[in-house]
Amino acid sequence: MARAPKVLVLNGPNLNLLGAREPEIYGRQTLADVEAACRERAAGRGLELEFRQSNREGELVEWIQQARGEHDAIVINAGAYTHTSVAILDALLAAELPVIEVHLSNLFRRESFRHHSYVSRAAIGLICGFGPEGYLLALDALARRLGSEMEA
Amino acid sequence: MARAPKVLVLNGPNLNLLGAREPEIYGRQTLADVEAACRERAAGRGLELEFRQSNREGELVEWIQQARGEHDAIVINAGAYTHTSVAILDALLAAELPVIEVHLSNLFRRESFRHHSYVSRAAIGLICGFGPEGYLLALDALARRLGSEMEA
Amino acid sequence: MARAPKVLVLNGPNLNLLGAREPEIYGRQTLADVEAACRERAAGRGLELEFRQSNREGELVEWIQQARGEHDAIVINAGAYTHTSVAILDALLAAELPVIEVHLSNLFRRESFRHHSYVSRAAIGLICGFGPEGYLLALDALARRLGSEMEA
Amino acid sequence: MARAPKVLVLNGPNLNLLGAREPEIYGRQTLADVEAACRERAAGRGLELEFRQSNREGELVEWIQQARGEHDAIVINAGAYTHTSVAILDALLAAELPVIEVHLSNLFRRESFRHHSYVSRAAIGLICGFGPEGYLLALDALARRLGSEMEA
Amino acid sequence: MARAPKVLVLNGPNLNLLGAREPEIYGRQTLADVEAACRERAAGRGLELEFRQSNREGELVEWIQQARGEHDAIVINAGAYTHTSVAILDALLAAELPVIEVHLSNLFRRESFRHHSYVSRAAIGLICGFGPEGYLLALDALARRLGSEMEA
Amino acid sequence: MARAPKVLVLNGPNLNLLGAREPEIYGRQTLADVEAACRERAAGRGLELEFRQSNREGELVEWIQQARGEHDAIVINAGAYTHTSVAILDALLAAELPVIEVHLSNLFRRESFRHHSYVSRAAIGLICGFGPEGYLLALDALARRLGSEMEA
Amino acid sequence: MARAPKVLVLNGPNLNLLGAREPEIYGRQTLADVEAACRERAAGRGLELEFRQSNREGELVEWIQQARGEHDAIVINAGAYTHTSVAILDALLAAELPVIEVHLSNLFRRESFRHHSYVSRAAIGLICGFGPEGYLLALDALARRLGSEMEA
Amino acid sequence: MARAPKVLVLNGPNLNLLGAREPEIYGRQTLADVEAACRERAAGRGLELEFRQSNREGELVEWIQQARGEHDAIVINAGAYTHTSVAILDALLAAELPVIEVHLSNLFRRESFRHHSYVSRAAIGLICGFGPEGYLLALDALARRLGSEMEA
Amino acid sequence: MARAPKVLVLNGPNLNLLGAREPEIYGRQTLADVEAACRERAAGRGLELEFRQSNREGELVEWIQQARGEHDAIVINAGAYTHTSVAILDALLAAELPVIEVHLSNLFRRESFRHHSYVSRAAIGLICGFGPEGYLLALDALARRLGSEMEA
Amino acid sequence: MARAPKVLVLNGPNLNLLGAREPEIYGRQTLADVEAACRERAAGRGLELEFRQSNREGELVEWIQQARGEHDAIVINAGAYTHTSVAILDALLAAELPVIEVHLSNLFRRESFRHHSYVSRAAIGLICGFGPEGYLLALDALARRLGSEMEA
Amino acid sequence: MARAPKVLVLNGPNLNLLGAREPEIYGRQTLADVEAACRERAAGRGLELEFRQSNREGELVEWIQQARGEHDAIVINAGAYTHTSVAILDALLAAELPVIEVHLSNLFRRESFRHHSYVSRAAIGLICGFGPEGYLLALDALARRLGSEMEA
Amino acid sequence: MARAPKVLVLNGPNLNLLGAREPEIYGRQTLADVEAACRERAAGRGLELEFRQSNREGELVEWIQQARGEHDAIVINAGAYTHTSVAILDALLAAELPVIEVHLSNLFRRESFRHHSYVSRAAIGLICGFGPEGYLLALDALARRLGSEMEA
Repeated sequence: MARAPKVLVLNGPNLNLLGAREPEIYGRQTLADVEAACRERAAGRGLELEFRQSNREGELVEWIQQARGEHDAIVINAGAYTHTSVAILDALLAAELPVIEVHLSNLFRRESFRHHSYVSRAAIGLICGFGPEGYLLALDALARRLGSEMEA
Repeated sequence: MARAPKVLVLNGPNLNLLGAREPEIYGRQTLADVEAACRERAAGRGLELEFRQSNREGELVEWIQQARGEHDAIVINAGAYTHTSVAILDALLAAELPVIEVHLSNLFRRESFRHHSYVSRAAIGLICGFGPEGYLLALDALARRLGSEMEA
Repeated sequence: MARAPKVLVLNGPNLNLLGAREPEIYGRQTLADVEAACRERAAGRGLELEFRQSNREGELVEWIQQARGEHDAIVINAGAYTHTSVAILDALLAAELPVIEVHLSNLFRRESFRHHSYVSRAAIGLICGFGPEGYLLALDALARRLGSEMEA
Repeated sequence: MARAPKVLVLNGPNLNLLGAREPEIYGRQTLADVEAACRERAAGRGLELEFRQSNREGELVEWIQQARGEHDAIVINAGAYTHTSVAILDALLAAELPVIEVHLSNLFRRESFRHHSYVSRAAIGLICGFGPEGYLLALDALARRLGSEMEA
Repeated sequence: MARAPKVLVLNGPNLNLLGAREPEIYGRQTLADVEAACRERAAGRGLELEFRQSNREGELVEWIQQARGEHDAIVINAGAYTHTSVAILDALLAAELPVIEVHLSNLFRRESFRHHSYVSRAAIGLICGFGPEGYLLALDALARRLGSEMEA
Repeated sequence: MARAPKVLVLNGPNLNLLGAREPEIYGRQTLADVEAACRERAAGRGLELEFRQSNREGELVEWIQQARGEHDAIVINAGAYTHTSVAILDALLAAELPVIEVHLSNLFRRESFRHHSYVSRAAIGLICGFGPEGYLLALDALARRLGSEMEA
Repeated sequence: MARAPKVLVLNGPNLNLLGAREPEIYGRQTLADVEAACRERAAGRGLELEFRQSNREGELVEWIQQARGEHDAIVINAGAYTHTSVAILDALLAAELPVIEVHLSNLFRRESFRHHSYVSRAAIGLICGFGPEGYLLALDALARRLGSEMEA
Repeated sequence: MARAPKVLVLNGPNLNLLGAREPEIYGRQTLADVEAACRERAAGRGLELEFRQSNREGELVEWIQQARGEHDAIVINAGAYTHTSVAILDALLAAELPVIEVHLSNLFRRESFRHHSYVSRAAIGLICGFGPEGYLLALDALARRLGSEMEA
Repeated sequence: MARAPKVLVLNGPNLNLLGAREPEIYGRQTLADVEAACRERAAGRGLELEFRQSNREGELVEWIQQARGEHDAIVINAGAYTHTSVAILDALLAAELPVIEVHLSNLFRRESFRHHSYVSRAAIGLICGFGPEGYLLALDALARRLGSEMEA
Repeated sequence: MARAPKVLVLNGPNLNLLGAREPEIYGRQTLADVEAACRERAAGRGLELEFRQSNREGELVEWIQQARGEHDAIVINAGAYTHTSVAILDALLAAELPVIEVHLSNLFRRESFRHHSYVSRAAIGLICGFGPEGYLLALDALARRLGSEMEA
Repeated sequence: MARAPKVLVLNGPNLNLLGAREPEIYGRQTLADVEAACRERAAGRGLELEFRQSNREGELVEWIQQARGEHDAIVINAGAYTHTSVAILDALLAAELPVIEVHLSNLFRRESFRHHSYVSRAAIGLICGFGPEGYLLALDALARRLGSEMEA
Repeated sequence: MARAPKVLVLNGPNLNLLGAREPEIYGRQTLADVEAACRERAAGRGLELEFRQSNREGELVEWIQQARGEHDAIVINAGAYTHTSVAILDALLAAELPVIEVHLSNLFRRESFRHHSYVSRAAIGLICGFGPEGYLLALDALARRLGSEMEA
C-alpha cells in the first residue's frame, strides 16, 4: 500500500479537562499526554493520525462529516454526547467508515444514564474502562483491520 | 395583501449531506436541489423563502428566535434534534409562528428512538415520508394558510 | 399511460360526523365537502377517485382487500382504528399498494393514546394536522408518485 | 317540561348472553329481565327508554351517533369494548350528551386489562359492581339530572 | 326482619371542607348537607345511619374495625386515602362487611394518580362522578342488598 | 357414541386472502385448500366440521356465541383480533367449550405486538408456526380429547 | 396595609429530631433553632409567624385547612409525607393560599423515591438543599410577594 | 452486663385484630397471645420487653423516635405501613438502633403491592411467613446480637 | 477576607428572550432587568458578579470549565439543557465549585419531561418557581455560604 | 430416501418427575410413558427417535451441539430453562436444524414469567397445552416436514 | 414420633467461599463452621440433618427432587440462583415439602436485581440478614413446625 | 519480577462451536485458533496463559473460584451467561482479581436482551466487537496493568 491509512481520533465534551477532572474516575494523564501516546502508537503501526477535541456537538458532527473521503477510520470518545446525541450517530452512519468507540471509564459501573450509547449503533466495537490505553488498543485494532482490508 | 409572506425553511444536522448520506433512506437529491425546488414552489405560491441548514443546535435556536418579526411561518426538518432538543422546542414555542414539521423518511417505520418528536409539540402539522416533496407540500399548506389568514 | 390511476380514499369511524363533531378539533367542513374538494383535486391531477367512509373495522378491512387489483393507491384516515386495529394494518400490508396516512388533527398534540398508529407501519408517509387539506396534499403526493412510477 | 326526556341504554358485546354466561360473575338475570326492570324504573322516573344491544363495535358507534338530536342522555355498558374501543369513545365525545358508564361486575377486582376504560373519558360518572341494579341507579341519577337541567 | 340494618358512612380527609373546597370539582353542598340528605334517604329505605368524617388514616382504620359487629355495611368515600392507604384496605378486608366505594368526582377524568384505588379491592362496587347523589345511590343499593340478604 | 362430535373452525380477518397475502409469511395454500384439508382430516377422525371466516369482530363473537349447544369444540385462528379483541375472549369464556388456538406463523418470531394473545386465556392449548398443518394437528388433538371424554 | 401578613410554617414527620437525626444530611441545628431564625427573619420582613411541627398526616391536613382565613401564606416542609400524601396535597389545593415548598436536603441527590413530591403540585415554588436557610429564603420570597400583592 | 437490654416490639395497623382478621392468612392467635409469648421468650433470653400496637402512622413514628436512648433494639411489624410509610422509615433511620422486620405472612406470595417494604431499608434483617413465631425468632436473634455486642 | 467572592451566573437557551417569550410562564422582566437586579443584590452582599447567557450547549460547557480557578461559585439556569445535557452536568462535576440551580417557573407543575434535571446531580440546592427573584435568593444563599466558608 | 430421519427429543429440568409432580398441571403420565408413546408414533411415521432428559442447562446445550450432523430435527421441551436460558437459545441457533418447541401446559394461562420463551426465537413452531400428546403432534409435524424436504 | 424428622439444608453457588468472600457482606465464618453450628442446633432440636453445597443449578435441582420421600423439610440458601432459577423453583414446588428460604445478607439493602426471589414462591417463609444465625433460626422454626405436625 | 503473571482465559457456552456457528456473526476462526493466537500473544507479553471453555455455568463458577491464589487476572467471554448469570458475577466479585470482559460481536448492535451484562459489574473494562482479536487486546491491556502493578 502506497500511503498510510489516516485515522481521525475525536474527543467529546470535557475531555479537554483530562488529568484535572475527577482523577479518581478519569486518571491523571492530560489530553495532550493521550495525544502524544496515540501519535507514538500510530507511528509504530503505520497510521497517520489526526487528534481533535470539541465541547460542541455540532462541531463534532461536522468533523465526522468531513472525515468521509479524508480519513480511513474514526476512533471516537464522544464523552457525554455518547448518551444524548442522535446527531453524532447520524453523522457516523453517514460517514460509512469503520468506527471504534472508546471510553476511559467502564460506563457499565457508573450511573445508569451512562449505560446507553447512541454511538454503539454505528461502531464496529467498543473498548471501555482502560483509561487512555483504550485509545491505543483501538489504534492497534484499526491498524490490523485497515491493513488486512487494503492488502486483500 | 401588499407583501409576500416570508417563510423560513430550517434544516437540522446532517441534512447538508443529502444525496450522499444513506440514499436508500434519504434519496439522491442534494440539499441544493431541495432548496431550488422549494424556491420554485415558493415563487409559484407567492411566498418569499429563506432556506438554511445548520448542524448546531444553538444556531438553529437562534435562527428560530430571529424569525419572530422577520418571518410569517417556519418549515422545519430538525433532523436528529427532532428527538433530543427541548431547546429547539422552547424556541419554537416562543416564536409564536405557524410551524410545519417535515421529515424525509417515515420516522414511524425506523428505530423506536425516532418515533418521538419534541418539535411536534409546537407544530401545526407533520408531513413525513415523502422525501424532498414533503417540503413542497408544506409550502403549499402554508401558502393556503397564510393567504387565507391575511385575506380574512 | 392509457388510463388514469385509481385512488381509494378511506375514512374510518366518526368521520361521517365531520363538521358537526367537536369543530374546534376537526373544523367545520362536512365529509361531503371534503369529498368534493378531493374530487376536484383528483380531476386536476389526472386521478380517478373513490371516496368511502365506514364506522366498521371489518368493512374497512374488506374495502382494503378489494383495492388490490382495483386501485393503484390508498389514502386512509382510519380515525380511531388508527390506534387499535391490527386487522386494518394486516389488510394494508396484504394490499401491497402505496398507502398514505392522513389525519385531520396533529395527533401528537392530543392524548397520548393517539400518538401510536398501526397504520404507519404500512404507509409511505403521514400527513397530519392540516384539516381537510391533508387529503389534498396526499393526492398531490400520490399523483406525482404514480405518475413517475408509470412513466419510468 | 312538555315531553319526557329520552334515554338510550346501550349494551355491548356478549351482554345478550346475560343469565347464561359465567353466572358467578354476571348473575342469573337475562338481558330481557334487565330491560324490563329498566322500563319499569324509567316509567317511574318519567323517562322514555330505548334499550339496545350489539356485539358490533361499528353498530354501537352508529347508535351513539344517532342519539344526538334523538335522545337526551346515554347509559352505556360497553362490555369488552370498554377496554379497547377508541371509536366508541370518539362517538360519545361527539354526541355531547350526558353519559353514564355502567358495568355489572366491579372491574377493579378482575383481570388488570379490565381496569382501563376508554368510555370513562366521556362519562359523567361510573357505576360498577351492582349487577343489573347498576342500570337502575344510573336511570335514577339521570332522572334527577335531566329534571334539574330542564327545569333550570 | 326485627331491626333496621345499620350502615356506617365514612368520609376521608378534606371532605369536611365540602362546599368550600374547589366547588367546580366537588360542588357547593356542605358535608352537613350531604349527611342530611343521607339521613333522609336512609330513613326512607329503612336503614339506620351513622355518618362520620376524619382527616386521619388511623381513625378511619379504627372506625372500620369497630364496624364489625356494630354495622351491617359500610359506604366509604376515603378521599385522598383511596389512593395511598393499604391500612384502610386491610381494615375493610378484615371487617368482612359489604362495602360500597363512593367518590364525588369521576376519578378517571382527573390526574392519573387518582385512577388507582386500594379501596376497590375490598368493595362490592363503585359509584363515582355524581357528586353527593352518589351517597344516596349507594344507600339505595345497600337497602336492596341488605333487605334481600336478610329476607332470604 | 351415537353422533360425531361437531367442531367449529373459525378464521379471523384477512385469512380469506390466504395464498395471496405475503406468501413468505403465510404460505401459498388458499383458505379453500385449508378447508378441504380440514374436511378430509375431520372425516378421517370421525369429526363433523363447520369452517368459517369473517373479517368482522362482531360476527366472530356471534358465531362463538352460537357454538354453545351447537358444537362440541372450537378451533380458532383469530388473526389480528388475537391481539386486540377482549370481545372474542369474553365470547370464548362464555361458550364453555374446549378451544384450540391456531396461528399459521410463529407469532413469537414476529413484531412484539403479535406476542400477546387474548385468545390464549380461553384456550386449552396453542399451535403456531406450522402453516395450514396447524389446523390438522388441532383436529387430531380435539378428536382424541373429544373421543376420550365421551368414552370415559 | 394595616396588619402584617401572617405566615404559617409547617414541618412534617421527624423534623422534631432536627440536629440529632443524621446530621450529615440534615445539619446540626435543632428545630427550635430554625424556629428562632425564622422568627427573627419574619420580624425583619414585617411578617407575623406561626411555626408548627407534627408527625401526623391528619394533623397537618387540619392545620392546613385552618390556615384558610387565618393565614396569608404557607411555608411547608412536609418531610416524608412530601412523597406519599395526597391528603396534604388536597388540603393545600383547597386552602387556595400561596404555598412554598422547602426541604433541608437536595432531594434529587438522594434515593429515587424522594424525587417525587405531591406538595409541588400545589406550590408556587420549591427551595431545597440549603438546610435551615431554605426557610429564610422562603420567608424572603413570601415577604416580597405578599407585599407586592397587597400594594398593587 | 449490669442491665437487661430493652427491646421495643412495635405492631402496626390492624394487628390489634389478630386472631379475628382473615385467620387463613394471619392465624388464630390474638395479639395478646403474641405479646404473652414474646414476654416469655424475652424473659428466657434476658431481655426486657415493651410491646405496643397502633393503627396510626404518626404514633408509630413517635414511639420509634422515643426508642432512641430508651431501648436497645426494635422489632417491628409495620403491617400495611410497611409498604407506604416513608415517615416510619425515616424515624427508623434516625433511631440508629438495630431493627428487625417481622411479618406474619410471607409477603412475597401475596399481592404484588405487598412485595415492597420501606422498613427493609432500615432493618438488619427480615423474618416473614412464620406467623407469631417470627417475633420469637426475632427476639432470639436480638438476644444473641445484643449480648455479643455488649460482651465484646 | 481580602477579595470579594466571584459568582458566575449562567443562563441557558432562550433566556435571552425573557420578557417577550410566553410571559404567562416566564414573566415580563427582560434578562437585562434580571442582570441589573442581580448586580444590585450582589453588590449588597459583597459578591463580584459575572452574568452570561448562551443558546449553545458547548459554550455553556466551556464557560463552566473556565470557572474553575476564576470563580468561587456558579448559579445556573440551564433552561432546556437542564433536561437533556449530560455534558453540562459533567462540566459542573469537574468544576468542583458550589452550584445553585435556578428556574423561573416551577418545573414540577409543567410537562413531565421538565421534571428531570441533570443539573441537580451537581448542585447544592434548587430554587424554582419564583421568577427572577430566584436568582436573588440564590445570591443570598451563596453569600452566606461563601462568607462562612472563607471565615472558617 | 434411504434412511429414516433422526429426531432428537429433549426434555429439560424436572420433566423426570412427570406423573408425580403437580399432576393437576402436568398430568399423570410418567416420562417413560411419554417416551414409549413417542417411540410408537415415531415408528409409525418412519422416524428414528432419540429421547433424553436432563436437569442441567450445560448438558442440554451440549446435546443440542452434538445434534448437528447427527440428527435431522429437534423437539424440545426445555421446561424452566425455556424462560431463562440464552445458552440453550444460542445452541439451537447454532444447530441450524428444524426445532419444534413443546410444553405440556398452556404457558400463557400460568404465571407471567412463564409467558416468555427464549426457545421460541429458534423454533419453527410451538405446541403447548396438550400434555404428552403435544410431543406426538410435534412428531407428526416433523415427519411431514422432513418427508417433504427430502422428497423435494 | 418414632424417628427424628430429616431436614435437608441446601447451599447454592459461591457459598463454599464463605468466610473468604467479601467478609464485609457475608461475615467470617466458613461454610464448615455454619454446618457445625447447624448440626449442633439440629441435634438440640431433635432433627436429623443433611447439609450440602453446590455451584451447579442442575445438581441443586436433583437434590431437591431426591428430597421427596427422603426428607421432611428443606432449608435453602440458593445464593445467586435465588434470582435467576425457575428450575429450582419448579423442583421445590414439585417436592411438596415445607421450605424455608435463608439468606446471609439482607437482600433488600443490596443491588435491585437481588430483590427478586423465585424461591420465595415455594417457601413458607424467609429469613435474611442475620448471617449464619439465619440457618439456626430456620431450624428452630422447622423443629417447631415438624413437631406440631407430627404430634397432631 | 521473578515469575510471569498467570492469566486465566475463560470461555462460556457455545464458544466451543466457534468457526462453525453463525460465521457471519462470530467469524471463521475456531476456538483452537483463538487459543493459539492467545498463547502466542501471551508469550510475547511475558504472561503465562490458561485457556478453558465450558458450557456449564457451575463449572465456570468453580474455575473462577479456583483462580484466586492461582492466577493474577481473568479474561472472560461468558457467552450467553453474560446476560443471565448472577452466580458468575458473584464468583468474579469474590475472586478479587482484575477481570476483563470480552465479546466477539458488538453486543449493542444485536438483540436487546444481549445489551445487559452481569459480568460488567465485576470487570475493569470491556472489549467487544473485534472478533478473536478482542482477546489479544485484553492480553495487551493486562500485560501492561500487571507489569506496572508489580513494578510499583
